[in-house]
Amino acid sequence: MKLYDLELSGNCYKVRLFLSLLDIKYELVPVDFMSGEHKSPEFLQLNPWGEIPVLEDGDLILRDSQAILVYLARKYGGDWFPNDAKNMALVTQWLSTAANEIARGPNDARLNKKFGFAINLDAAQQKAESILNLIEKHLTTTKNQWLALDYPTIADIACFPYIALAPEGGVMLDKYPAINQWCDRIKKLPNFIEMPGISK
Amino acid sequence: MKLYDLELSGNCYKVRLFLSLLDIKYELVPVDFMSGEHKSPEFLQLNPWGEIPVLEDGDLILRDSQAILVYLARKYGGDWFPNDAKNMALVTQWLSTAANEIARGPNDARLNKKFGFAINLDAAQQKAESILNLIEKHLTTTKNQWLALDYPTIADIACFPYIALAPEGGVMLDKYPAINQWCDRIKKLPNFIEMPGISK
Repeated sequence: MKLYDLELSGNCYKVRLFLSLLDIKYELVPVDFMSGEHKSPEFLQLNPWGEIPVLEDGDLILRDSQAILVYLARKYGGDWFPNDAKNMALVTQWLSTAANEIARGPNDARLNKKFGFAINLDAAQQKAESILNLIEKHLTTTKNQWLALDYPTIADIACFPYIALAPEGGVMLDKYPAINQWCDRIKKLPNFIEMPGISK
Repeated sequence: MKLYDLELSGNCYKVRLFLSLLDIKYELVPVDFMSGEHKSPEFLQLNPWGEIPVLEDGDLILRDSQAILVYLARKYGGDWFPNDAKNMALVTQWLSTAANEIARGPNDARLNKKFGFAINLDAAQQKAESILNLIEKHLTTTKNQWLALDYPTIADIACFPYIALAPEGGVMLDKYPAINQWCDRIKKLPNFIEMPGISK
């Protein structure tokens, strides 16, 4: 199994983190993002979207970090993506939150501030605060300690990286105590790994 | 089962369409979007995100259209969201595309042009053309007639509405023949239903 990877990408990190939590061996293939390797003809052959991460497992090629989490969970991870309709849907809600609100908020703010992408920083930071407020309220009112269920699932893994990296987009987490506690719980999972900007 | 609904919302329509394809009876609860009912304290109790659709089934409340499709497929729809890791992940890729690229592209363009939302129309239209080009290329090169697999899945249902509604955001579909043919295939599914802006 090969993971096409960029160390500084939160979407790549969420896959590396989950592979580590599952204790799965794989081959890491670094992609030279800064020189535009992800837009090269060879890479576009692999992923026409021109994005990383990409997971290659035999003849299967997956281009989306949420889909990769689903694949790994169903293949190796048992309850990380539960089987029954209700719990599977409760987890899926947060996969959409990762792909939509978290991408448009803390991820976009970081892409502007850290990497200089032409993205409206004010708008992204406002969206970041909006989704962080909703998640803070959710974690404060739910009886669970995790986003979707009463144990960790790929909902938590999908949402964690760009929330923990929010300060790199100029969005501070001090006023979100429940989110900080949730981040600490994730950091205590067996085989948790760090990335630049996210330490234990 | 209750669906809190707005007739003109593509996200609500994707749930109504799938319920119809599955031939499931349910109660439709119209939400008065124009007067802001989705931001009322009563509605925020149901869905703190303040968004529609919301599906209520017994004590389960789901707030995200992709998650609702997953729930209905797993509960009633057999292969619409397949069980094995590989095919489930291939479908999930397109659920993320619906929640991310299609939301930021054709959906945002329509929100501006049809409903006056304060969204950068040029940027949304550019993103719409970009994702439509990728999907056109995908449909042209894949051996399948459907987005994810060789039969229709919730990948198609999740992506269809805002693609078919793209002209309402000023994004014409004339130059995307494979997308038009795919839309026609969806419109021929048994129990297909229309919405304003999408007719057979």
